[in-house]
Formats: sequence, C-alpha cells, structure tokens
Amino acid sequence: MKAEILSVGTEILLGDIVNTNSHYLSKELALLGISVHRQTTVGDNEDRLLDAIRSALKDCDIIFATGGLGPTTDDITKETAAKAMGKDLYIHEPSLQRIKGYFRDSARAMTAGNEKQALFPKDAYILENDNGTAPGCVMTNEKGQSIVVLPGPPKEMIPMFEEKVKPYLEKYLDSTIISKALKVIGLGEWDMASRVRDIITGNENPTVAPYAKDFESLLRITAKAENESACRALIDPVVAEIKARIGEYIYGEDDDTIEKVVGELLIRNKLKFACAESVTGGMIASRMLGYEGGMSKVFDEAFVTYSNESKTRYLGVDEVILKRHGAVSEETCHAMAKGLLENTGAQVGLVTTGIAGPDGGSPEKPVGLVYIGVNIKGTITVFRHVFSGGDRNRIRSRATVSALGHLRTELAKELN
Amino acid sequence: MKAEILSVGTEILLGDIVNTNSHYLSKELALLGISVHRQTTVGDNEDRLLDAIRSALKDCDIIFATGGLGPTTDDITKETAAKAMGKDLYIHEPSLQRIKGYFRDSARAMTAGNEKQALFPKDAYILENDNGTAPGCVMTNEKGQSIVVLPGPPKEMIPMFEEKVKPYLEKYLDSTIISKALKVIGLGEWDMASRVRDIITGNENPTVAPYAKDFESLLRITAKAENESACRALIDPVVAEIKARIGEYIYGEDDDTIEKVVGELLIRNKLKFACAESVTGGMIASRMLGYEGGMSKVFDEAFVTYSNESKTRYLGVDEVILKRHGAVSEETCHAMAKGLLENTGAQVGLVTTGIAGPDGGSPEKPVGLVYIGVNIKGTITVFRHVFSGGDRNRIRSRATVSALGHLRTELAKELN
Repeated sequence: MKAEILSVGTEILLGDIVNTNSHYLSKELALLGISVHRQTTVGDNEDRLLDAIRSALKDCDIIFATGGLGPTTDDITKETAAKAMGKDLYIHEPSLQRIKGYFRDSARAMTAGNEKQALFPKDAYILENDNGTAPGCVMTNEKGQSIVVLPGPPKEMIPMFEEKVKPYLEKYLDSTIISKALKVIGLGEWDMASRVRDIITGNENPTVAPYAKDFESLLRITAKAENESACRALIDPVVAEIKARIGEYIYGEDDDTIEKVVGELLIRNKLKFACAESVTGGMIASRMLGYEGGMSKVFDEAFVTYSNESKTRYLGVDEVILKRHGAVSEETCHAMAKGLLENTGAQVGLVTTGIAGPDGGSPEKPVGLVYIGVNIKGTITVFRHVFSGGDRNRIRSRATVSALGHLRTELAKELN
Repeated sequence: MKAEILSVGTEILLGDIVNTNSHYLSKELALLGISVHRQTTVGDNEDRLLDAIRSALKDCDIIFATGGLGPTTDDITKETAAKAMGKDLYIHEPSLQRIKGYFRDSARAMTAGNEKQALFPKDAYILENDNGTAPGCVMTNEKGQSIVVLPGPPKEMIPMFEEKVKPYLEKYLDSTIISKALKVIGLGEWDMASRVRDIITGNENPTVAPYAKDFESLLRITAKAENESACRALIDPVVAEIKARIGEYIYGEDDDTIEKVVGELLIRNKLKFACAESVTGGMIASRMLGYEGGMSKVFDEAFVTYSNESKTRYLGVDEVILKRHGAVSEETCHAMAKGLLENTGAQVGLVTTGIAGPDGGSPEKPVGLVYIGVNIKGTITVFRHVFSGGDRNRIRSRATVSALGHLRTELAKELN
C-alpha cells in the first residue's frame, strides 16, 4: 500500500513550528508496513492544497492529511479533501453533539466555526477526537483510495491515530497489529539498543525498534497477525526476554509517564512526598503535580532551596558541611535529603543539587555535575551524575528525569 | 520570490530521522522575505525526485534541495537536478582538489564515489563545504529559475547556508532584509491581531505578521530595502505605532524571554525574589531559574505550597481565611502574597492558587480559575483569570506565563 503524508499549515512553511507529525506518521506507517512515497507540506491555501491532494491521488492508495481542521475560515483541509473526491458535506449529528458537550464542560462559547467542525461527507468514517473539538475522518472514493483527515496538534493527532486510525487500518489491511512500548530511564538510546541488539536485528515479527525522547528511551515491539491473541503470543516472549536483560531500567509501558508511575506508588502506599530542589529548581515538583490522579493526597509542600542559606533554613543543612564540601557535594545532598524528611511530614523525599552552568564549573566540579538524593523513611541513597552536552535547561531536565527514575527504583526496592 | 524546499532521503520517509532541515530553511527564508510555497520530501529514487523537481519548477522561482550529495550510488540529487535542467556534469577541478585535501588531512581513504562529489554543470555556482566532502551548488536555467543543492547533514547544511547561500541570495535579491519581533503576553494572538489589524493589512514593506507560541503572542515586522538603515527607517515608525496601541502588553523583542526580562529587572535593581506556587507547583521557579544571567544574586528560595496546611505553615495564611474563602480565592491569594515577603528576605513576591483539574471545579469556581498575586515591597495586586480549554498542564503553563507577565508589568510600574 502506497501512502503520502500531507501536512497543512502556513506556520510550518514559515518555520514557526517543526513538523513532528510527518515524522511520527512516517515511523508508525513504516511499522504497519505501509510505504510512504512522499511527504508534502502546503499552506492554508485552497488551490495549492487541492493540487497537492490531486497529485497524491495519482500515485497513492492512501493520503494521511494533518492540520486545517480548526473552526476558522482558514481551516479548509476537510472541505478541500471532499472537493477533490467530489463529495458534499453534511452535519454529522453525533459529532455536533460531542462538540456542544465539549463547550458545555468548558467556560468558552461555541462559535459558528465550531459547527463547521461537524461537517462530513455522508459516507465518511468518523474519527472521534477525545482531546479537542475537531473530529477527523476517512473519506474513500470509488477507486478505493482513501484520505485520512487528522487534526494538526500532536496532542490530538497522536491519540486519534493510535486509538482510532490504527484499528481502522488493521481492518483495511486485513490483519491485526498490536504494539507495546517499554519505557526506559537510566539507559540512553544507544546503550539500551546495544544491550538488546540481537533482539532488535533478530526479529521481523514482532519488530523491535528503539527510540529516544525527552531524556527517556523507549523500545517499541510491534506484531502483525490474524488477531489480537496471535499478536500477543508473538509479543510476550520478546518482552520477557527484553525484561530479563534490562528490566531494572524499565519503569512502565505504553502511556505510562514517570510521574504517573511514581505518583501511583506513593498514593497506593499512602506515602507523603516532598522534594527540595536546587539545580532542578521546581522542575521535579512541577512534573509530579502534573500527574492528574490525585497528588493532593500525598503532596503537601516542596522547596526550591537555591541559596546556601535556604538549605540551612528549610532543610537544616549544617553550615559546616556546606563550607567544607560545598553546596554541590555528596555530603550536602545527603544532609538535604535527611533534613527534608525531618522538617516536613513526608515519608519519601527527593533532593537535587548541581551545577547547570553556563558558569560555576571547575575541573573537579564541572558544569553538569548533579547529586540526587532519595530518602525513604530515613534510608538515604545519593546518586552522582555528570550530564555533559547541552545547555543549562537541558542539564536541568535530564537531572529531573534521572531523579524521578532513581526515586522509582528505590521505591520499588523498598516496597518489595 | 516563490520557493520550494525539497528534502531527499528515504530515511526521512521511514521516520528514522526528523526533517529539521525543512524547518531551518523555512524560518531562514521567511526572514529573507522568500515565500515558501511547499515543502516536499521524497526518497532516494530518481523517478520520484525528477517528478518532484519538475513539479516545483512549474510554480517556483527557486528550489532548495537538501540531501543526496554523498559518495554512494544512492546519492542522486545533483545528477537529477542537472537532468531536470538539461545540463551535463563535469569535474570541477578546484572542488576535486579540496576533496583530495580533505582526505589527506583525515585518516580515511578517498573512493571513486568521492570524485563524483566534484561533478557539476559548467555554469553552476559552487558552494564550498567547510564541514564535509560534498560541495553544494546553485544551478540556474534559461528562465532564471534556480536549484540550490545542499548536503543533508545539518552540521554541513546550516554553515553552508549561513556562509555561502545567504550572501549569494542577498546579491541575487539585491536588497537587505531586517526583521524585528515584538513579544506579547496578556493578549491572545487573535486579540492582538485585531487591535492592530489595519497595521497588518495596511503594510507591505515592512510586512507585519502575528504568531502565537507557548501561550505568548508575537508580531513580526520585516522590511526589505537597499541597506540596513533603510530597513530600520521602514520598521521604526511601524513599531512605534504598534507600541502606541498595545505597548503595555509588549514585554520584549527578538530573543528576549519573559524570564530574561524579569530576571534582568530584578538583578539590575537588586531586588530579591521569591515565589510560592500552588496551582503552578514549581513552574514559575523552574522558569525563572532557567535564565542563565545570574539568578543566584536575587533568588534564594521558593515554595510549593500545595496543601492548605503548607500555606499556613510557610506563608502564615490565616486558617480562618482559608476556611471562609477557600484555598482558591482572592483573599487567600492576597494573604499568600503578603506572607511570602514577611516570611522571606525577598522584596518581590509572586504567588499562584487555582484549579487545574480535571477534578475540583464547581460552577462558582470552575477548572481553570487561577488567582495570581504580585507583592512588590508590600504593595499587593491580585489578578483573576479563567483559563478555559485544555488539560491540567496547559492551564498550569498558561498561568505561569500570565503570572510572569503580570510581574513584569507591576515591576515596570513600580520602577518607573
């Protein structure tokens, strides 16, 4: 099956945003065995969009179009796709009701443009949008060619592709495709891949592919078979083999995030959590509170202790330790972790101290040096890292992911 | 001048690499006033590449092609571009000598494929490669249309574009292009654009274009003239007119970030800063400490006061206020702002309390309700917002940007 990926958006042509959708879809379609022959990006311009669709329909069996499903008059992808296929648009009542419901739940007013988002060809296959107002759809012409119309924002497009388009394509492809992601912290993409190299190269079904994103790594295992249980039967032994090799670094699967995994561990075990951040300065607290599963049950307070004085004042770090070993040292990190639990009602504490640069580094303590302290009911473990390469905020973000990874590993040990 | 960006590489179509070249070139060409009408990606396949070049030559004045200049037989971009323009290739002796020199200086052996990298049409303008073996070139046909052929690796492509292509284009364009961005917080893209609509539509040189990104808005003013001072003379009155309309919302220009602008105000005026975050839970502190200009001079400590108890304990918020008005109220926000300065050595304080959801909202206090408190040396101002639409972390991020915007405005008033 030949495919074209068509991105619609003047903001991409102006270089205001990076086209991550094309990359995501290319990768996913490759895993599904669908061959992408071309990627095209055009602006919000009907003539050019129509040209691009017609040109793609000359060669391809299926077009994946993203963007241009919004409520404004600039958003014309669905209308233009329908025009290219000679189809008229009608209000799709269930979609209209869903959009109205979306606005009922929010404080914003629905506009006429939002009603337009419920217009579809009568024979279109509707793709519900669980993360925004614009539904997608699949239109198919008399030759059996399809245009899959998807929203532009990745946080709407990706779940729609995963949850709605993939099952549709599987029917179309006459086989089931199941994929499982193993999520890894503490091993870079290359290290991870080299530990399971023979599994990656030795398997064709399921395929095993490594990825890196936001300072985490990921292994995706994808199987194609006649039904779900046949897929699972292909996937399970490969997952078991991977877990036997690098299981300690795998913190979760699929939609898990490190804050969700750690948050659920804390909530399930009724463990109050606190953190005190120097180098990460709020990033750990911010990330933990991003988990929407009820952090208020276990999260009362956190500190950003940037100065030496604040480390003493809020965490009781001995000034002598600070003076003798410096703020960025194993000893200070240990004292921060100790003082954090003594000065709060928490049973689990996470602390960081380090040098994010660009200034402040030395041969003994280079920029990128970070100490991470985990305190679980008084048992303190301190980890030392040097995160080299990258600017201040890259170092801080890597330290944050690393700290949450260590916290999960230590919690898992403690709770076992 | 109409342009097309053409990326060549099967690895992009397979999703193995992200196409950052298209993004980079789109942004740079927009700044030069060259309008990108389409981006296309094809694999290392002669037929499809030839089709793509011919299709682009129908519409465009100039094609920027990246990738496919390597030494292998898969690398066919230059050959195919020459074919499309009806040109033959010859060894370009200076390029061959440079390639030979490159291999003399390295430990690797030169291959016959590397000689192919020195083949060019006789009338091509050669773009030397200071970071690899493959030179680029500009081919121009009898209609005056050009194909700029560039290597694929960004570390070769970007310096070649900066150092070789830009000066070439400027000569070609026979003019200088200068652009200035005005950065806005507190007005959405649509609100901002509607207040300056006549300026946007009424100007062709400079052009004025609105954008939105990361909960901020931006107006880009771009002028084209014979030299820099002529550009400035076109830009300055338009900027003055825009500032007269929406100046209070403009926090900076070009590479300014809100944390840089606020950070510099604090450092320059020797004002100690602290924050206490409930709904934003660390995001403000994290963002402020992302500014690399020496925040340690003014930033000692910050709190995440997520529970009611922590608001009382660290900020001295009266329990009666919390009980009577609730944690998310103007009164609690005011008390947090007051207590923050009383309990720390700071002169400037920023606090937030709100409901990020998904649970916890009510008709009177919906999800998205956020109070932001600014305290400058005891003068407290509280701002109320309802950020509707979007998930928990979107609301928190919008609240963070809004809070920093309010802090800047209040600081500017106080310091005036």
